[in-house]
Amino acid sequence: MKTQYGFFDNDSKEYVIKRPDTPLPWINYLGADEYCAMISNTAGGYSFYKDARERRILRYRYNNVPMDRGGRYLYIKDSKSKDFWSATWQPTMSDLDEYECRHGLGYTKISAEYSGISSEVTYLVPLGENLEVWMLKLKNSSKKKRELSVFSFVEFCLWDALNDMTDYQYNLNIGETSYEDGTIYHLSRFRVEGNYLAYFACSNSKVSSFDSQRRDFLGNYGSMSAPEAVIKGKCKNSIACGWSPVGAHQVKVKLAPKEEKTVIFVLGYAEKPSDVPKTVKKYKDAEKVEEELGKLKEFWSKNISKYSVETEDDDVNTMVNIWNQYQCRTTFNWSRSASYYEAGIGRGMGFRDSNQDTLGFVHQIQGKVKQRIIDLASTQFEEGDAYHQYSPLTKKGNGRGYSDDHLWLILSTASYIKESGDIDFLFEEVPYDTGNKSTMYEHLERAINYSVTHVGPHGLPLIGFADWNDCLNLTIDKGKNKAESVMVAMMLVAAAREMARLAEISGKTADSTKYVEIAKSMSEQINKEAWDGAWYVRAFDDDEKPVGTSKSKEGQIYLETQAWAVMSGVADDARAKKCMDSVKKMLATEHGVMILQPSYDKFHPELGSITVYPPGLKENGAIFCHPNPWAMIAETILGRGDNAFKYYKAILPAARNKIAGLHKVEPYVYCQMIAGADHKDFGEGKNSWLTGSGSWNFVAISQWILGVRPDYKGLIVDPCVPKEWDGFEVKRTFRGCDYYITVRNPDHVSKGVSSVTVDGVKVGGNLIPAMNDKKEHHVEVIMGKNSQPK
Amino acid sequence: MKTQYGFFDNDSKEYVIKRPDTPLPWINYLGADEYCAMISNTAGGYSFYKDARERRILRYRYNNVPMDRGGRYLYIKDSKSKDFWSATWQPTMSDLDEYECRHGLGYTKISAEYSGISSEVTYLVPLGENLEVWMLKLKNSSKKKRELSVFSFVEFCLWDALNDMTDYQYNLNIGETSYEDGTIYHLSRFRVEGNYLAYFACSNSKVSSFDSQRRDFLGNYGSMSAPEAVIKGKCKNSIACGWSPVGAHQVKVKLAPKEEKTVIFVLGYAEKPSDVPKTVKKYKDAEKVEEELGKLKEFWSKNISKYSVETEDDDVNTMVNIWNQYQCRTTFNWSRSASYYEAGIGRGMGFRDSNQDTLGFVHQIQGKVKQRIIDLASTQFEEGDAYHQYSPLTKKGNGRGYSDDHLWLILSTASYIKESGDIDFLFEEVPYDTGNKSTMYEHLERAINYSVTHVGPHGLPLIGFADWNDCLNLTIDKGKNKAESVMVAMMLVAAAREMARLAEISGKTADSTKYVEIAKSMSEQINKEAWDGAWYVRAFDDDEKPVGTSKSKEGQIYLETQAWAVMSGVADDARAKKCMDSVKKMLATEHGVMILQPSYDKFHPELGSITVYPPGLKENGAIFCHPNPWAMIAETILGRGDNAFKYYKAILPAARNKIAGLHKVEPYVYCQMIAGADHKDFGEGKNSWLTGSGSWNFVAISQWILGVRPDYKGLIVDPCVPKEWDGFEVKRTFRGCDYYITVRNPDHVSKGVSSVTVDGVKVGGNLIPAMNDKKEHHVEVIMGKNSQPK
Repeated sequence: MKTQYGFFDNDSKEYVIKRPDTPLPWINYLGADEYCAMISNTAGGYSFYKDARERRILRYRYNNVPMDRGGRYLYIKDSKSKDFWSATWQPTMSDLDEYECRHGLGYTKISAEYSGISSEVTYLVPLGENLEVWMLKLKNSSKKKRELSVFSFVEFCLWDALNDMTDYQYNLNIGETSYEDGTIYHLSRFRVEGNYLAYFACSNSKVSSFDSQRRDFLGNYGSMSAPEAVIKGKCKNSIACGWSPVGAHQVKVKLAPKEEKTVIFVLGYAEKPSDVPKTVKKYKDAEKVEEELGKLKEFWSKNISKYSVETEDDDVNTMVNIWNQYQCRTTFNWSRSASYYEAGIGRGMGFRDSNQDTLGFVHQIQGKVKQRIIDLASTQFEEGDAYHQYSPLTKKGNGRGYSDDHLWLILSTASYIKESGDIDFLFEEVPYDTGNKSTMYEHLERAINYSVTHVGPHGLPLIGFADWNDCLNLTIDKGKNKAESVMVAMMLVAAAREMARLAEISGKTADSTKYVEIAKSMSEQINKEAWDGAWYVRAFDDDEKPVGTSKSKEGQIYLETQAWAVMSGVADDARAKKCMDSVKKMLATEHGVMILQPSYDKFHPELGSITVYPPGLKENGAIFCHPNPWAMIAETILGRGDNAFKYYKAILPAARNKIAGLHKVEPYVYCQMIAGADHKDFGEGKNSWLTGSGSWNFVAISQWILGVRPDYKGLIVDPCVPKEWDGFEVKRTFRGCDYYITVRNPDHVSKGVSSVTVDGVKVGGNLIPAMNDKKEHHVEVIMGKNSQPK
Repeated sequence: MKTQYGFFDNDSKEYVIKRPDTPLPWINYLGADEYCAMISNTAGGYSFYKDARERRILRYRYNNVPMDRGGRYLYIKDSKSKDFWSATWQPTMSDLDEYECRHGLGYTKISAEYSGISSEVTYLVPLGENLEVWMLKLKNSSKKKRELSVFSFVEFCLWDALNDMTDYQYNLNIGETSYEDGTIYHLSRFRVEGNYLAYFACSNSKVSSFDSQRRDFLGNYGSMSAPEAVIKGKCKNSIACGWSPVGAHQVKVKLAPKEEKTVIFVLGYAEKPSDVPKTVKKYKDAEKVEEELGKLKEFWSKNISKYSVETEDDDVNTMVNIWNQYQCRTTFNWSRSASYYEAGIGRGMGFRDSNQDTLGFVHQIQGKVKQRIIDLASTQFEEGDAYHQYSPLTKKGNGRGYSDDHLWLILSTASYIKESGDIDFLFEEVPYDTGNKSTMYEHLERAINYSVTHVGPHGLPLIGFADWNDCLNLTIDKGKNKAESVMVAMMLVAAAREMARLAEISGKTADSTKYVEIAKSMSEQINKEAWDGAWYVRAFDDDEKPVGTSKSKEGQIYLETQAWAVMSGVADDARAKKCMDSVKKMLATEHGVMILQPSYDKFHPELGSITVYPPGLKENGAIFCHPNPWAMIAETILGRGDNAFKYYKAILPAARNKIAGLHKVEPYVYCQMIAGADHKDFGEGKNSWLTGSGSWNFVAISQWILGVRPDYKGLIVDPCVPKEWDGFEVKRTFRGCDYYITVRNPDHVSKGVSSVTVDGVKVGGNLIPAMNDKKEHHVEVIMGKNSQPK
């Protein structure tokens, strides 16, 4: 399975990169909790504590040339030959004899061989710590005795990442460092704030020299590729007061032939300088680091073991069992705040984003999801709508005016309850933005009520600034505030249906009837107003004209309202098939389903920023990966497993590993978009890692294609797979029980379950009742033409 | 006069740099009007049109490593040897055989010699154009025929400089370029806005290949030091749609021995693509460029010829006649918006800054100053105070709460009237922020009235958020809004005195009496409340406690209130001498006068951000260059010319040329600060070019030390110079007349004029009456012990 750049090693749960010069930096996230370290396959990236903007620990230069500079660098210098290189290729970019990067779950290992010296650096954030460990193993594979110097290098960010790159009046004058016992303390702003600092220590070796002022280490016009201190073989023991604090150590290492030594560095965040020495000391030997690495692997294995699958498609197994779940936790943790495309200074935790991010993560740790939903609901307005995002440090909201945000809260809450069975959550008291409280149930009611009461000329919800499609801004140009969102109308139907079920299981029968009625009448309204003949229109603009209609030249059909028509049940069978056929015909490509066609060639102020982008990019006709799983889900609802799986595989990162040169972004996580057919780089990915695609694709494959789907009373098993599949196995942890589910497909159907046997006993229908007995259960599912009524 | 890095060539009005690796980039500003190009001695920097944030043309990476990357680059490649280098050292940093940079007024020439090829690049912005020309002359000084390729390279900024470096979701998807006839069009955002674009053309040579997508020119992990296209000897003719638009041309040049050829590039801003070809064509030959260079030199010579001096001190002559005036126009033009320290995204035209910037520029072009004063006054509130700054694009104000801003308006208006004689300006109608209008006279009255009516417990003006010293924030911590500024009280006295004179010459006798009275009573109040025994305190904090008192351990004495006590006339003779003696004893150093002593070692929330900085930096005890001329002026008022001149020389850039390695910033312009005695890098400069130091130092030397000072009725001549001086000559253009003033000092006094002869006729006192006859006048001034009453 080896490809041009790398391959999956599923036994180790690692992606292995064999060339350092990947088309873009291929990164990993270290740190499962408050300390976050992004690291590329050549050790680029930065770290932060909790908030990527306010507590940025390392400086990283976005959009730099050379690409991906600023990182966790280790230079190795041969004292005799004077030659030096980087243990991670960057930043010297030396022509290494061997190179390998292994991105694992929560750690990254980069190994290299150069001039008879083997090196392996392991980077990890130990569980429960606000620090990262860099363990460098050096081995002399030559036949001569070698004298080496290892130089470490990091550049500190002056904490506020935005100020750091804009306000030189101020920040060239605030840098401060100190040094003691191998530890460089980064004390900028500590003079004022008194409660945060960073440190960079060598924990197990004697430090021969150090630097903490950048110009002293790099040289005045020096570069990271060839620091003056490395060239000269000695640091200047510089202390920074102003200009640019960095951290650099020199450690001398003598190696006899075959001899191996380890040098350990610790980079961390602290609140009191006096805490640091004790913390550093913990990592004074390799055994301790290996032990922490072991714990980390165990932690991750446990987290992702709640859902695992064995199918006949390796790409599916790889992504579902390892990488998609890993990405889901990452998006859950950091929302859209900090990636190689999100500079970590603008966006907090998105309301819409975070609600959706829970969907793919809720099976891992329900407690965290519940807290997140409470945090989100606490930024809801009493009117029912919500702030668009909130700050992770303060949990205060900001932004308003999106028409979809609040409706996602119903979806996430229902998903949490289905997973956990915690129906009581509906009746816990949760505050609004004002501080006033109500039950979660009432939060959800108000959310629905907001959309029901804010409708436009066609009786459909007003779109406001935008709905899920941020760039469809229909009211800015004319300012009439009459534009309506068909997508939000469909979301409202889905939300009202879910609410009816929640009411029902809560014993509120009258409410349930009410929500069924809301769903019904909104469905009718949509079908009356928004059907274009072969698909649903996307919206109505401020002049009450349809957007996404065959009558337009550009933007005739949009994906969202076709998939949601099916997902919400708005479309009857005929229309559902017809609109999804239109999607297949007009939007589906080998690289995924485009968001609209044809792309807009001109700017249309009345449509907003969707038309700001050139054709085929972003919301203007790219393959937007987030709504692709909606198309997959819709196809599974229609029973068309071949279509669903084809859409799934088209954007599946692992399946794109073989075209990594075109795809460009990491082949182990989803990206936000792939250039559409209207763009010359059709198939080129962009904006990887922090995207709702992670969560929704996991939902699509795990719940709808493989069809193992939590519901209020148990686990539904309702696969919709390629006809040619013989079957597959799923292991699913659900409410404390482990279900080993074997699915057989003797008739080679796409959909339809003819029998379900739990622990040898046949159950009617396809719902495995929640056992709640903390035991293992074995389930056999036979697909077939004679499917049971559901 | 040659020094380590460079020297002044006054005949050419150039500063000549002989080593490329200056301690920091030493820059120049090209463009006297709407198009601005900052360029370093190695061609780094960026350009913008009108607004450094919203219309940034080139991308520049602040705080980059290597330092100063992003610029106007020209690679020269020998097709045979494959060797290549940069015509401006950066970015290849090749080991050039010869290097020279000549920063002239409005142009920069960089020449180099490498492997038998001489090159000279001239960069200029022709008058009246929104473009820059790069003229590269190549000469074969070897004995062989040579085949060269010239590669040009710029990187386009995506217009909004802040968005450009923060929002990759958006801006990696909006880049667009096109190419036609040697011209690369940068069309990002043109799709939407339709009225701005940039272009980069080769105007006189055949283009063999080009690139406009960065990765295609540099290579995927390529650097500016060694672009892939240069290494391979060919561009890819790439067009950008997304990612990173750049401009790069390849031009092939064959040179016989001794042969010389010229390649011309034009980089510009336009509003219609169709305008571009005609504009580019204008620069199709070297003669045209030389002609424009000639016009530019003439323009500048004329501008700076309004004041010229011949003293026995070359540094004085260099700075007064050329560089200080050049800097004054630059600060007047760009306020504090864009320099190598001001990232061009935060600050518009400062109210306080711009008023002060007029003081050093008003003798050059009064019309521009009048318009600026009107623009500023138009952002004044009807209550009398003012916005802190305004946007140069919209002229709308922002920020409020500084206690000094409005008072500077009186100073600038008086200075304008003294220079121009345009007393009628006082009675022109000028709007307030609301749009309502009044006379300028009333604007000034309201400014004074604001300070008179906003006083605190000691009867002194409230300090608000801060006064001139931005970092002295006395009300943030406790929020009582009781803190008072002694400096603003002194400014108020000075302003009221000036207002009394304006009232008097306007025939408003009663007003005049009123303002004299205001000045008198505020003076008494200051002397009663703010005298500390050997100096004036700086302020009273929110708890009514003095700031800047001998009773404190840190920050005992501040410079501002000593100098202003004398400048405003608040201090009687004894106190004036005493407080300025304290300055000399406690604040004066070989590198200039420190702003306070001792520097604050700890953070004091009740004093605000002044204590955020480490000791000896910025407002916390640095040699802040802006208030240094206030000390000089105060010393001249006291008649102590030796002190005044010593202070002047200590921070005089040209005088620091010989310690350029320590001083670090450009030795031809003022910087904002020099590290104070409490800092380990005592004497190191920071933040050059855009600082009020430029204007005030010009006022101090020209009007107070040399003593040629415009007044309402004529030119005062009242020098205060070092006793050892024999005399000096000044040529001064004043209200259309040219005055040739010869000052003799036979008695070797510092101050005192014993006779003034104008065109052979003795005048009483030391005022040369305004002649208003457009003629030349010859003035002889004899200094002496028997000075005339003034």
